[in-house]
Amino acid sequence: MTDLLLRNLRPMGGAAVDMRVLAGRIAEIAPSLAASGETVEDCGGAIAIPGLVEAHTHLDKTVMGLGWYENAVGTDLRAMIDNERAERHRLGLDPHRQSMRHALALVGAGCTHARSHVDIDTEHGLAMVEGVLQTRDALRGILDIEIVAFPQSGLLVRPGTLELMDKALASGADLVGGLDPSGMDRDPTGHLDAVFALAQKHGKGVDIHLHEAGTLGAFALELIMERTRALGMQGKVAVSHAFCLGMNDWHATEALIDELAACDIAILTTGAPSREVPQVKRLQAAGVRLGAGCDGVRDTWSPLNRPDMIDRARIIAMRNNLRSDADLAFALEICSTGGARVMGLEGYGLEVGCIADLTLLNAETLAEGAVSDAPRPLVVKAGRVTARNGTALRKAP
Amino acid sequence: MTDLLLRNLRPMGGAAVDMRVLAGRIAEIAPSLAASGETVEDCGGAIAIPGLVEAHTHLDKTVMGLGWYENAVGTDLRAMIDNERAERHRLGLDPHRQSMRHALALVGAGCTHARSHVDIDTEHGLAMVEGVLQTRDALRGILDIEIVAFPQSGLLVRPGTLELMDKALASGADLVGGLDPSGMDRDPTGHLDAVFALAQKHGKGVDIHLHEAGTLGAFALELIMERTRALGMQGKVAVSHAFCLGMNDWHATEALIDELAACDIAILTTGAPSREVPQVKRLQAAGVRLGAGCDGVRDTWSPLNRPDMIDRARIIAMRNNLRSDADLAFALEICSTGGARVMGLEGYGLEVGCIADLTLLNAETLAEGAVSDAPRPLVVKAGRVTARNGTALRKAP
Repeated sequence: MTDLLLRNLRPMGGAAVDMRVLAGRIAEIAPSLAASGETVEDCGGAIAIPGLVEAHTHLDKTVMGLGWYENAVGTDLRAMIDNERAERHRLGLDPHRQSMRHALALVGAGCTHARSHVDIDTEHGLAMVEGVLQTRDALRGILDIEIVAFPQSGLLVRPGTLELMDKALASGADLVGGLDPSGMDRDPTGHLDAVFALAQKHGKGVDIHLHEAGTLGAFALELIMERTRALGMQGKVAVSHAFCLGMNDWHATEALIDELAACDIAILTTGAPSREVPQVKRLQAAGVRLGAGCDGVRDTWSPLNRPDMIDRARIIAMRNNLRSDADLAFALEICSTGGARVMGLEGYGLEVGCIADLTLLNAETLAEGAVSDAPRPLVVKAGRVTARNGTALRKAP
Repeated sequence: MTDLLLRNLRPMGGAAVDMRVLAGRIAEIAPSLAASGETVEDCGGAIAIPGLVEAHTHLDKTVMGLGWYENAVGTDLRAMIDNERAERHRLGLDPHRQSMRHALALVGAGCTHARSHVDIDTEHGLAMVEGVLQTRDALRGILDIEIVAFPQSGLLVRPGTLELMDKALASGADLVGGLDPSGMDRDPTGHLDAVFALAQKHGKGVDIHLHEAGTLGAFALELIMERTRALGMQGKVAVSHAFCLGMNDWHATEALIDELAACDIAILTTGAPSREVPQVKRLQAAGVRLGAGCDGVRDTWSPLNRPDMIDRARIIAMRNNLRSDADLAFALEICSTGGARVMGLEGYGLEVGCIADLTLLNAETLAEGAVSDAPRPLVVKAGRVTARNGTALRKAP
């Protein structure tokens, strides 16, 4: 919580103003403000947007900082999962160190909040959750991290995993995760009953990976919506990926999307170019809350993703054929305000009274900000400068 | 044509060697070579690959170097085409200046060759072709540019366009272009007859934009293949985009792909994330020659593309679900050797005897080279250094 006077910044690409931050919150915005003892930062006319929100990632998975990881696994989901469990040993992937590296790269690129799924399995137990919890503590005031207890290797098919999930939630994980209830656990009803029971027991929200395409995924979505309604969990459930909503059956997907809106279930997308994906403008039109994430970054799955929500805004724009300035600004909004709405962040925004979480963009317009790879000149978290010129001030281990 | 001694480079990611270039060609490759009067460049262990090949772009379209272009047009193809024709006047887009900017950005990113479609229409006549011809001359020895005479606004629907195309081919354009024979010209047979007649008259190859999806695009492909066979033009025809090959009908697309291979018709892809696209591994397995391009860059259509074939390799990898090291090296190959094969480049490669067109990559492995945005440390064209650290030595206007 710091006092700060930001000079000559353009909130949401508008006219240049000064912004005073007192005790971590935006206290005053005006064309010109006199300093009264605060640290002063000249923003040079850069655009300001609220802090970027990485709403779907895996902080425990990256191999950043190690040598190049040679991937010979291919693209089969189970093969990639099994490979990763084994490689964690061989590579000596320390979950705290690795999540610090990943998280601080996000900060350098303008993030102020992240939701991370963290693997829990019977082979590694709670080691990954403990490592990321440690990172969450270490980065308090720099990056707010939500942790999803995530049964990456399956929940019911690996006896003992449910008990570990239970422990993780008791020791600080924020949400219950799930994964392809048919494809992984071979028991959609059993899987989702277990996930929602855990959520009820701990009074926590849910965020389920759903890669299942077509009607199989649609059935899983139906089961998720039934449980959300029956348990009164509207507003507390998110589905990540939801590739089934990209299937080529307009009427079937329309009914699902409308029902998602009615249940206030949020969707988190990566805009995966290789898969059918829910189209973001369609979700927006239906009133579905929508955030985005970069997914795993430089991990044993793939080296293609980068820890940068502006890079992700461009990918989402490409995947969803967003070209106009208005549409590109929407891509940016998904990666900031959209994620904040999914995570239910209090005090998020650039209005007076909001927490001063923001990033500057070196761009003429919001649309340019969504597609440019220029480093972010300045990142501010509750009034404290956390990054300059693309690099976090806190050094990664 | 220059003599050059490159020290400590790793061709295709292999062991470090020295490479001697004499009169523009690779003369010698050995673990250690003594200089005998050549300029010496220390490559610091960087990977060397043959020069990147931008095989589908539009050098006459970019707004690079102007202020931000605000796009309010949306995504309708005809609306985007009409908007561009009008905006060329309003923005004062000088085709020589703009193509210089675009072309030199490509050089900075490691390109040694580019194939550019160049608009021809009854409103602007041959102004764009003349501008890009001027750029081709200006950049001789820096970037080899192939020009496709391209009827962007339609061929038969705009009387007078065919005559302009004829003139462009007489005055130096290398190939005959075409565009959505049903979608734009409303006469697939007439359009393709006209395109192939021009190619026959001038003894030149063909490169047709085919955005038409599904069975309409498949029919256009059939007409193209029929004409290729009838006229003995195997090896001289390319189809850009070919979105119809991404349609969800395995048997229909398999027959088309096999027939493409039999006709030796090449495919040029951008890996467009928003469209169904031909899957690159499937084309490779069938033996179809395959290159890639970034398409238009920062133009009135969209600001999403960058003039960088490594950025494009990553997008193609994302769109085609290429993750393993072998597959990522293949993405890089499409963007270099693949394009060279489509363009029929003589002396392309890193073997002794080849023309010394190459780029260095700051990467441990070819796979890392395909996904990293690190600036290219050095670009060489026929033994002459054309770019350093991501920037062309020749200044753009």
